[in-house]
Formats: sequence, C-alpha cells, structure tokens
Amino acid sequence: MRNPIGIISMQFTRPFTGKDLHYFQKAADLGFDFVELLVPEPEDRLKIEDVKSAADAAGIFIVLAARTNLQRSIASADAKSRQGGFDYIMHCVDLAAELGVRIVGGPLYGEPLVFAGRQPMPRNDHEIAEFRERTISAFSQLASYARSANVVLAVEPLNRFETDIISTTNQAVEIVDAVDNPAFKLMLDTFHMNMEDPSIDGAIKKAGGRIAHFQANENHRGYPGTGHIDWRTVMLTLAKVGYQGPISLEPFRRNDDRVALPIAQWRPPYEDEAPMLRAGLELIRGAFNECAGA
Amino acid sequence: MRNPIGIISMQFTRPFTGKDLHYFQKAADLGFDFVELLVPEPEDRLKIEDVKSAADAAGIFIVLAARTNLQRSIASADAKSRQGGFDYIMHCVDLAAELGVRIVGGPLYGEPLVFAGRQPMPRNDHEIAEFRERTISAFSQLASYARSANVVLAVEPLNRFETDIISTTNQAVEIVDAVDNPAFKLMLDTFHMNMEDPSIDGAIKKAGGRIAHFQANENHRGYPGTGHIDWRTVMLTLAKVGYQGPISLEPFRRNDDRVALPIAQWRPPYEDEAPMLRAGLELIRGAFNECAGA
Repeated sequence: MRNPIGIISMQFTRPFTGKDLHYFQKAADLGFDFVELLVPEPEDRLKIEDVKSAADAAGIFIVLAARTNLQRSIASADAKSRQGGFDYIMHCVDLAAELGVRIVGGPLYGEPLVFAGRQPMPRNDHEIAEFRERTISAFSQLASYARSANVVLAVEPLNRFETDIISTTNQAVEIVDAVDNPAFKLMLDTFHMNMEDPSIDGAIKKAGGRIAHFQANENHRGYPGTGHIDWRTVMLTLAKVGYQGPISLEPFRRNDDRVALPIAQWRPPYEDEAPMLRAGLELIRGAFNECAGA
Repeated sequence: MRNPIGIISMQFTRPFTGKDLHYFQKAADLGFDFVELLVPEPEDRLKIEDVKSAADAAGIFIVLAARTNLQRSIASADAKSRQGGFDYIMHCVDLAAELGVRIVGGPLYGEPLVFAGRQPMPRNDHEIAEFRERTISAFSQLASYARSANVVLAVEPLNRFETDIISTTNQAVEIVDAVDNPAFKLMLDTFHMNMEDPSIDGAIKKAGGRIAHFQANENHRGYPGTGHIDWRTVMLTLAKVGYQGPISLEPFRRNDDRVALPIAQWRPPYEDEAPMLRAGLELIRGAFNECAGA
C-alpha cells in the first residue's frame, strides 16, 4: 500500500480553463498520482468529458476542491446564502459523480473571513450555538446526498483568519461525529494545523479514521522541506492511524520575500518549478515510506 | 542579567480605561515585570499622570503597543492615511517620552488586512516597490524623531492575513537595515514567526542585535506550554544572540473550542486566569534561565 500523492491545480495556473488540461500530463510526468482540481466555475469553460479524458490519458485521478464563499455558505445566518451553499455542494457532488471522483474537500461550511474581506466580529453564546446547529443540519442532509452518489465530503478546518466556523481539528471531529455518516469525513492541512492545533501529531491521532484527505503544506506554504513542519513525525503519525488516502501538496511559491509583497495572494509561477516540486514530492514520499516501513 | 517578562494589558480587559489601572498591581502580583499597554485612545480616558503613578506604585514598567489602522498607515498609497500614520506614531513617541517608556512596538507600517476587513489583492512590481519606499522613507523620519526623544520604535512583522507589508523576519531586517538608526529596531512574535519564517530559531539568529522587543506566544495563542512552540530552543537562541530586552506574553484564552467561536476575535476572560498566567510566566522564565545558564 502506498498513499497517492498529488498536486493542487492552481500550482500550475489559475483559473484552470479548458486550455490547461495538459497540466494533468505535467503532473503525471513530475511523478504525482492525482491532481486536486478546484471545482470549475462556468467561466472556466471546462468540459466534464474533456477533464475525464485528459485525466485518464495522463493516468492520474482527481480530487475536487470546493470553493465556497459568502453566497455559498451553509452556516450563514442568511437563508439565501445557506441555500447557495447547499446548492453548490450538491453541484460539487454531482460533478464528482460524473467525473468518477471519490472526494470533494474544502471549507464546505462557508463563511470565509479575510478572503471575502470580512473581519472577525464577536458572537454571543446563542449565535455560536446557532451557527453550529445550522452547520450540522446542512451537513447531515448533504452527507446523505453524497453517500447516494458514492462521494465522500471532506470538511477542512481553516485557520482563524480564513473562517470563524471550523478552525481546529477538535471542532472538525465534533462536526464529523455529530453528522455520523460514512460519506462525511475530514480533511487536514498541516498549514492550518500548525496555527490552530496544540500539536499536529496529537490532532492526527485524534482525527484517526475520520481523515479522508490530507494536505501536506509547510508552515509558510513554501516547498516541502523549506519550512519547519516535522514531516517525519507527520508521516509517522499518519501511518500509525492507518491513513491510506491521498496526500496533496499546495506549495505556493515563497522564495519571493520582497517587502510589501501580498503573501496571502495567489501568484502565478515565474520560474520552472519542476525541480522544487519533484524534490517536495520525494521528501513527502520518502518520509512516508520510511515511516510506513515500506 | 535577567530579561524582564511582561503581560499585555488586554489580557485583563479591553478597552483599558482609567478604571483599570489596578491591573498593574495584579500584573506585579502575578510576577510580571512590565505591562505592555495598548497606546490609549482618547475615549479610554486614561490620564498620563495616573498611568505613571499606578505603574510606579506597582513597581512595574510599561512598553507601549501602537495601534495602527487604515487611517494610520505610513505605507499607504493614500497621502491622508500616510499623514495619519505619521502623526499617530509621533503621538506614540511623545506619549512614551512623557511616560518614561523606552519602547513603542507593533505593526507601525499600518496597512492591516483581516482586522480592517481588507482582503489580499495582487500588486504589481512597481506598486510593491512603492510600498517599500514609502515605508522606509517614513520610518527614517520617525526614527530620527524617536531618537531625539530617547525612544526606540520596534517594528513587528504580522502574518500574511494581518498585513501585506512586513510578514517575515527577513522583511523586517531589510527595513531596519535600510533605516539604519539605533532608535529603529524590531519586535518579534513567535505566533507570527511560526507561520511565516522558515525556522524560528534561524530568524532569531538573523535578527540578532536588531531585536528590541519579543513576544512569546504559542502557535495557537493559548497559554505558554499548551501549544507546540519549542520554548527551550526559542529561549536558547535568544540567549545566544545576547538578547537582554523584554519578553511579553499575550496568551489569549484558547481553552474554549466551540464550533463557530470567532477565534481571531478578542474575548474577555471568563474565569480566573491567574494560575495559567503564573504557569506560563514560570515556563518562559524557566526556559530562559536554563538556557542562559542563570
């Protein structure tokens, strides 16, 4: 058994349009097993059958990364935004089923903060409880829908600056257990865990069999091995909890350290990243193989 | 030699008004050597002479934490905001001089992101260079002003979600070196370093003698010792670079892990925090003493 290792589509380009399907072959050539594709928007002009055939031709599979926003927000206090979130996640499930994709991951609860220009505001105990209830109620329905389609929803905690719904592994575990449906699991990302969890390996142990997808990102989001995440411990712990699912990389370029560069903002590649991506893949694969005793 | 260890005023309450000066004695009773006081706003109704006498009576000293915003933003493209930032930092220096305070620290460059409801946006190379030039130009003038007042400005990098001017220690070092004035140094915070620096101890080594103020915060901002920051390595490195300045704690309560709790939002204490604050202080003091061989 060997965990598939993949790469996010926006590593290559964003938006990822019908003209960009050749990147599937590039990912395969670099040694990746799958591409984590941002769920296409209509303006991306991606034809489902073209995506499927390009992936098949390259010999890679696809994991879908859902893109929620304030209008696609099942946790929202606004009924229209909740419906928007509900409709969107059903659309993601339909698309996954059509593509033969198993996993739809991401901050499926909605309610973005910094990337929507929304600032953190206090909530009283009643409001906090209501956000929680709306989240569980919607996910319960959506999990049933996903299960019928043989798709797994993987909810991802985001750090405190990106959302105010689920930021810690504890919070995600609580929601997954409350929904209690095998089609509803969680996705962990070391970038967010490094900020919000008391201990990364402790959080992986706690999440255990609930993990359906994993993102291996450095603390500063650079290429794996250039930050301070302890990859050996991370991979050892994943092996210990028996994780056999996909591991994806999103190493947004961080070797540009100019004053006043907006670091949180996506930037296109400006150099050939193949050597760094290959090295990152080998580092993660090597750490995992060593720890799994493979 | 023993580094003074302090606590941020908002650990106790916010806003910190004229009625809250008794917290200086509480900080002293807990064992802290100083209070890091948010620079008062007019509506806080804090009289300078009362602040000074309360601090003297408690036997603690004060470090000032400046509060910039979009209207107090020396890096801004908007001339009025730049002037607002300039005037504000001069006001902070005046206040420090009046209070006999040595250090004014914080994100003195301005340009907040998430806490101002501003989302990250791309900048072209020309804009990036302009932000850098405005920052250096303003800091050069302000450093001269501070030097005349025998006050040190300590510029603090904030993570990518809180600003898009200075996020890494490298960037801060570049600005400090460009300004080249003994009254202009830097302040490091392990919370931000954990997110943005390739290695926390590497960054401390690089900053070296430029460090004027240090904040010892856990990765998730809980009480020291409850997260994954390696305090022994941090303190060992501070001792190695000969750092003898203040170390302050801002352990915003993180034992509340409810789903939909806005973690980034300041919350008032809801329990007696004295035991946790004492334990945090002892942990930091102990790690430092051990490493300094004291």
